[in-house]
Amino acid sequence: MHYRVEHDTMGEVKVEDNKYWGAQTQRSYENFKIGVEKMPPELIAAFAKLKRSLAKVNQDLGKLDAKKAGAIMQACEDILEGKLDGMFPLAIWQTGSGTQTNMNMNEVIANRATEILGADFRKEKLIHPNDHVNMSQSSNDTFPTAMHIVAVLELTKTLLPALDTLHTTLHAKSEAFKDIIKIGRTHLQDATPLTLGQEFSGYASMLEHSKAQILESLEGLRELAIGGTAVGTGLNAHPQLSQKVAEELTRFTGQAFKSAPNKFHALTSHDAINFAHGALKGLAANLMKIANDIRWLASGPRCGLGELAIPENEPGSSIMPGKVNPTQCEALTMVAVQVMGNDAAIGFAASQGNFELNVFKPVIIYNFLQSVKLLSDAMLSFNEHCASGIEPNKDKIDYYLHHSLMLVTALNPHIGYENAAKVAKNAHKKGISLKESALELGLLSEKDFDAWVVPAHMIAPKA
Amino acid sequence: MHYRVEHDTMGEVKVEDNKYWGAQTQRSYENFKIGVEKMPPELIAAFAKLKRSLAKVNQDLGKLDAKKAGAIMQACEDILEGKLDGMFPLAIWQTGSGTQTNMNMNEVIANRATEILGADFRKEKLIHPNDHVNMSQSSNDTFPTAMHIVAVLELTKTLLPALDTLHTTLHAKSEAFKDIIKIGRTHLQDATPLTLGQEFSGYASMLEHSKAQILESLEGLRELAIGGTAVGTGLNAHPQLSQKVAEELTRFTGQAFKSAPNKFHALTSHDAINFAHGALKGLAANLMKIANDIRWLASGPRCGLGELAIPENEPGSSIMPGKVNPTQCEALTMVAVQVMGNDAAIGFAASQGNFELNVFKPVIIYNFLQSVKLLSDAMLSFNEHCASGIEPNKDKIDYYLHHSLMLVTALNPHIGYENAAKVAKNAHKKGISLKESALELGLLSEKDFDAWVVPAHMIAPKA
Amino acid sequence: MHYRVEHDTMGEVKVEDNKYWGAQTQRSYENFKIGVEKMPPELIAAFAKLKRSLAKVNQDLGKLDAKKAGAIMQACEDILEGKLDGMFPLAIWQTGSGTQTNMNMNEVIANRATEILGADFRKEKLIHPNDHVNMSQSSNDTFPTAMHIVAVLELTKTLLPALDTLHTTLHAKSEAFKDIIKIGRTHLQDATPLTLGQEFSGYASMLEHSKAQILESLEGLRELAIGGTAVGTGLNAHPQLSQKVAEELTRFTGQAFKSAPNKFHALTSHDAINFAHGALKGLAANLMKIANDIRWLASGPRCGLGELAIPENEPGSSIMPGKVNPTQCEALTMVAVQVMGNDAAIGFAASQGNFELNVFKPVIIYNFLQSVKLLSDAMLSFNEHCASGIEPNKDKIDYYLHHSLMLVTALNPHIGYENAAKVAKNAHKKGISLKESALELGLLSEKDFDAWVVPAHMIAPKA
Amino acid sequence: MHYRVEHDTMGEVKVEDNKYWGAQTQRSYENFKIGVEKMPPELIAAFAKLKRSLAKVNQDLGKLDAKKAGAIMQACEDILEGKLDGMFPLAIWQTGSGTQTNMNMNEVIANRATEILGADFRKEKLIHPNDHVNMSQSSNDTFPTAMHIVAVLELTKTLLPALDTLHTTLHAKSEAFKDIIKIGRTHLQDATPLTLGQEFSGYASMLEHSKAQILESLEGLRELAIGGTAVGTGLNAHPQLSQKVAEELTRFTGQAFKSAPNKFHALTSHDAINFAHGALKGLAANLMKIANDIRWLASGPRCGLGELAIPENEPGSSIMPGKVNPTQCEALTMVAVQVMGNDAAIGFAASQGNFELNVFKPVIIYNFLQSVKLLSDAMLSFNEHCASGIEPNKDKIDYYLHHSLMLVTALNPHIGYENAAKVAKNAHKKGISLKESALELGLLSEKDFDAWVVPAHMIAPKA
Repeated sequence: MHYRVEHDTMGEVKVEDNKYWGAQTQRSYENFKIGVEKMPPELIAAFAKLKRSLAKVNQDLGKLDAKKAGAIMQACEDILEGKLDGMFPLAIWQTGSGTQTNMNMNEVIANRATEILGADFRKEKLIHPNDHVNMSQSSNDTFPTAMHIVAVLELTKTLLPALDTLHTTLHAKSEAFKDIIKIGRTHLQDATPLTLGQEFSGYASMLEHSKAQILESLEGLRELAIGGTAVGTGLNAHPQLSQKVAEELTRFTGQAFKSAPNKFHALTSHDAINFAHGALKGLAANLMKIANDIRWLASGPRCGLGELAIPENEPGSSIMPGKVNPTQCEALTMVAVQVMGNDAAIGFAASQGNFELNVFKPVIIYNFLQSVKLLSDAMLSFNEHCASGIEPNKDKIDYYLHHSLMLVTALNPHIGYENAAKVAKNAHKKGISLKESALELGLLSEKDFDAWVVPAHMIAPKA
Repeated sequence: MHYRVEHDTMGEVKVEDNKYWGAQTQRSYENFKIGVEKMPPELIAAFAKLKRSLAKVNQDLGKLDAKKAGAIMQACEDILEGKLDGMFPLAIWQTGSGTQTNMNMNEVIANRATEILGADFRKEKLIHPNDHVNMSQSSNDTFPTAMHIVAVLELTKTLLPALDTLHTTLHAKSEAFKDIIKIGRTHLQDATPLTLGQEFSGYASMLEHSKAQILESLEGLRELAIGGTAVGTGLNAHPQLSQKVAEELTRFTGQAFKSAPNKFHALTSHDAINFAHGALKGLAANLMKIANDIRWLASGPRCGLGELAIPENEPGSSIMPGKVNPTQCEALTMVAVQVMGNDAAIGFAASQGNFELNVFKPVIIYNFLQSVKLLSDAMLSFNEHCASGIEPNKDKIDYYLHHSLMLVTALNPHIGYENAAKVAKNAHKKGISLKESALELGLLSEKDFDAWVVPAHMIAPKA
Repeated sequence: MHYRVEHDTMGEVKVEDNKYWGAQTQRSYENFKIGVEKMPPELIAAFAKLKRSLAKVNQDLGKLDAKKAGAIMQACEDILEGKLDGMFPLAIWQTGSGTQTNMNMNEVIANRATEILGADFRKEKLIHPNDHVNMSQSSNDTFPTAMHIVAVLELTKTLLPALDTLHTTLHAKSEAFKDIIKIGRTHLQDATPLTLGQEFSGYASMLEHSKAQILESLEGLRELAIGGTAVGTGLNAHPQLSQKVAEELTRFTGQAFKSAPNKFHALTSHDAINFAHGALKGLAANLMKIANDIRWLASGPRCGLGELAIPENEPGSSIMPGKVNPTQCEALTMVAVQVMGNDAAIGFAASQGNFELNVFKPVIIYNFLQSVKLLSDAMLSFNEHCASGIEPNKDKIDYYLHHSLMLVTALNPHIGYENAAKVAKNAHKKGISLKESALELGLLSEKDFDAWVVPAHMIAPKA
Repeated sequence: MHYRVEHDTMGEVKVEDNKYWGAQTQRSYENFKIGVEKMPPELIAAFAKLKRSLAKVNQDLGKLDAKKAGAIMQACEDILEGKLDGMFPLAIWQTGSGTQTNMNMNEVIANRATEILGADFRKEKLIHPNDHVNMSQSSNDTFPTAMHIVAVLELTKTLLPALDTLHTTLHAKSEAFKDIIKIGRTHLQDATPLTLGQEFSGYASMLEHSKAQILESLEGLRELAIGGTAVGTGLNAHPQLSQKVAEELTRFTGQAFKSAPNKFHALTSHDAINFAHGALKGLAANLMKIANDIRWLASGPRCGLGELAIPENEPGSSIMPGKVNPTQCEALTMVAVQVMGNDAAIGFAASQGNFELNVFKPVIIYNFLQSVKLLSDAMLSFNEHCASGIEPNKDKIDYYLHHSLMLVTALNPHIGYENAAKVAKNAHKKGISLKESALELGLLSEKDFDAWVVPAHMIAPKA
């Protein structure tokens, strides 16, 4: 391995010669050998978009000459195109401001930009990581800005489309199953009937509500800390910088961003991410409920509820031949549990800011992005390998419907709650049908019963 | 003690003669001797408003005669006026649908309404708890409806005004302190200066953002489950019931409510409450940060930071004479921690619905209302006994400002980051001032230094 | 209302004349109008035991004269006998050291002891709350000591007996059901058989393991902070105080206590309570699983699994006549969820100590005691109203057993996993029995099948 | 890319020819494209140890011939030596039983063992993944067994040594600083003095207590599910299998293992891991407190407490030249927050078992192992880059000590709490020293003061 010597304000450091990073990245790499979790590539990409926009705006504001700005912007494009993959080796578990990742960006961009300008960064630096790449910036405003950028982009480009995909399937099932009347269940006990389509419409509605919540929570994420620099005052930044960077990012990413109205808030509170993750927790809870319902309705094949058939994707057991399990439901529920844990971590971390800065930024964005990715992937996987293939087991559904005692509820308006209860209890005790029980108790005629107890009339309000 | 015999569909039960409740309440009272947490009075009041509206709408829809409806409505008014306090003795830890509290409402209202109609409920029931008070309803739609009503009312009538009160104070402090320049701190380490007013503007901004999040989350809470009855289909309810009840509640409470578009969702997902509590968790995190900052800035009196003075409300120590502690900050941070725990409980509970019903309703609303009350009370207490009385300790603030090495940041644009670092490090090492260090290193003239390093110029961006 | 004037080091305060508390209690009462949660009576009792022991030890060490000590001890006995109920009105949400509750104890005891000595505490104080009742103490060591005392006492006297009660029932069921062979279920899908007794033995084993964990976690709780006084150094305390108080408390309570070996740890870390609550969280998880299993096995009556019958305690629905629900299971699962939330709050709070003291003590002990009480009460309630009355539905159990395809697993050692899978899949596809399928595929003889596939031989290992 | 065709009971699947895995691994790989988290290598290694032991015991019990057993054992050794790295590509987010990872093990071992026996596994299978490698096993007992093995090994071989390392340092600092008297702080307010050594002894004691808790929680982890097979009954396993595997694993790993006394518990409750992670949460809380204390005591350099100097490892700011931050403390506190989140996820997951199996196994072990690794790495990093280099700033410590008003506490036994309070308050109000104040108030003589107020006499109890 060949090494070169890089330096920073603390002195010299040896760096592998084929790496674009500099002294500070190297120090962090050596000082934080903690865990396997690295800064996610999505965050690095968001950072590259930010650094690119800053170079452009600094040029527009007359603070950076066109040559330097152009080289920096090109270096950022190179990152976005994957040409510098492997150059961002730092752990999540570093300084809580993410300063070292900001410097990792600055150093790699500076060296690559130097190269773009025709020089060998190993010998001379035409672009300085702090003075040029980090011009008018501090880690304290760039890192939270990158957090918001990546949160908005991942929610809108990854999570919401995945949610929509699953919603489309559930909604289609709801339509396809709209005429299948089945028994309802509350408290796990037999209840009044509904259609399988209605049941699935509830699932679809959950996703609609979760989507609305995510969309609401996006608004706060569109506010960017950039321009606050070190402590929120904007020292060493141009007064128009913040607004112009938000505009440039809006143009470049296609997502609306704006300058945060109060930078002191933006550096030290992460309430926008905390709130948005609350929406993800809500989605996780909804998905857990949906996946649980489906695996229960598909339970069996002979000793369970068995109302639904789901796709058989893998042999289910290493010892029980022929067993098939609701594995996609299980993966989805495990993801839901993980998101709940992540929510606890984020809420805790967001509460721990001190004075002008919250220094739990990497752990916050790590958990946020893990939740987004897991939810997105799991919804798509569940959709493709489970939800799309759900089919009703009509015989079973029909059998339950006609044996349930809770059809008795239709009698309430006619014979009153207490008499209706007598009918149900008598039937249950003697193992007979509701009609047999009602007639035995002499509470109504067979004709009345047949007119009043009609499952198809029990699935909607009636004037 | 005198007892009377009440009955329900399971048989007879003895009830203390001076109680208005009936057999089902009594059963629950005896069967669930768990904990000390009772259904909160705010929830009972919301339920009374709901039952009142239902009686009115059932009358309007021609399902309930005017006499019965009137008596039921009057009984509900009695509850709201506190005349039936002590008649709602049931535990949170009962059936997960809250059915027994719905029946507690039905029984008390039925007996009181019977009385209003001139009869002795101990001898005859002119109003039946199920057939009349619970007409067109199920616990499965009334309980979640009452949850949403109480959530909206408590957030809007209790929490947001408390938040506004504290915000007003913090905002006023921000104005009052706008000319006090102080040192900033990031990572607990000295950073560039800002004004104390700016620091407090960050706190005010946190509350503004939390308020916006709460307002956003209110929308979902305005959707009411009522009309879904047993499983969401609306069996035994009139098609217009849901809409009319929402309108009546809107009129009666002054808060907008609407019929939930999908009742299957409304009975089995509690995503609206889950999401709204996420906003409360965000508020808790912000308050924790604010309270922590203030107690740190007020730390001392001689061995801490000492930049702020806060009111002295109680002797602080049973052993250390003269000690005064930031007790309001401590109460507020304990409340914040509690809200975080409540959030975990709510998220978990919300994920556990099965089929047509989530049966973790009481634990969800218990935690939600505890959070609302604790946050509201604690903000008001903190406001009155701490925030209002905060005063700057100008001598200390000034001392720190002029000794900090981070004023060096102002030199970046003039001598570059690396030279500026040399100045700071040299000053730190030798225990001298920045100016002495800069001159010693020959990096600029005294005149330059005096022109460039001016705290008052460091608290805002500059073109 | 009559008032008297009390004073403390900050001045005078008006107190209702019939209250035994003094100025500091009154200040806290007025300054912390937050929530409805008061210091639990169990904690007050533990505090009384502690104050009593301290008076005795201070007398033994020659620091407090016999008359004063005796009066203080008598006052503590009065508290334990309930004679001073209503005199401890302070909120959980007060100073985070619990100082005000320590002073509430000191003030009430001082006034009552003054009375015992024959004087009118409204006119003169023969016993001083700080100098005598709080002698050699600080809130900083008494409050955490009281926390440990109450934790040990409530765990050993309340929770473990409740756990034992439920365990006895589950174990008895396990014995009673030992010959009932039933189908197993994994992934909610049919699996190989086991006995119902074995299934219940798993539940009993869970409680045994939880008990072992609680017992292990008790050890740390037996260490007492007392003797550390203000910051852990023991300033103003006698060197033997700590040891002697632990001995006296051991004698008085019947539970072993010892002096914490490091008082700095004891004041500022609450790892013992945090760890013990982890055991409670484990118990909650086990109870949730047990309650869930039982309500699922009892699901139906006609459209569920229906293997178990559980007691019918209340009408289950306000709209569906005759419905009975697993309400005790629901209360227990709600309690489990609450304990999970409490665990999050405690873990968070325990991490927030600063320097010589953790000032989140009240919120920690509040959550701990709520968990203990809820778990204890809920286990007893579940035991009495549900577990004790569980009966198997043998017809249903038998039906499932003989229709399951997973009996095929018994064929693995004879025809191999892959052939066995073919048998199961063929039976599933064609809706025929395993034997029919096996014979159709020609993989074995009827005699072989009858010899190999015997549920009763499948419930244990075999050489 | 070359592919071969593998098959399982569901049919044929294409697998890259250079992979050792088979059809079921491939199915899972394709069906669960969720997240980036793979089964951790530590778990794969534990699984290899388990499979090796099973082959040996099956041979010893006469169920597997020596040739086959030998080949399987050799294949396991190959895995342990890293020769089959890259052959375990499955996600955490798969089936909740980990069946597919068990089959991944079975398939890779079968193919490699076939190779060892001299055949080409692409053409023939001398060893069958289910019948031979998985002999007498089910995923349902192997996966939880592997979970316990890896938990015990990682706790004992990784975490406890790291904890000991940090403890050694903190204990040494405690000794080195034993004569440095400093001011104590409670509620962030000045309190009575202690030595810096005592303060650090508290940190050391925290680690001792956390270690004791981890050791206690290890006991439950030593119980192994193996032998339970599909549902806990041990179907298709030899009665001695479980005991013998535990013995073989004990021998092979050097850590004591035993057969779980109740296999139904072992498959469906994860209380042992839940409890052990509670100990890790306790450790995380203690570490958070220690790291917070240290970064606060090192705050400054000019505007903070400044009692400690910690190593300067990296430039701290991209904009503020010369800034140095407590980055190791920050990484450690972020890890602590993550462990808290993981604890919530594990507790939730552990509560979700159904019937004979808990199907949240992968998410449980993922979080557990992440916590172990993060805590271990972070303690070592913190030790090396921060704790080891901590030095006291004696001037600052001394300055605070002699200016604090809380030395007044030493006067309590001489002039009473109330008079002592007057002295402190008078000094505070007038900005004078305690002695000046005491003399001014005429409460004692200068000689008395000098004799009574001696910090060195205030750091221990006194008879």
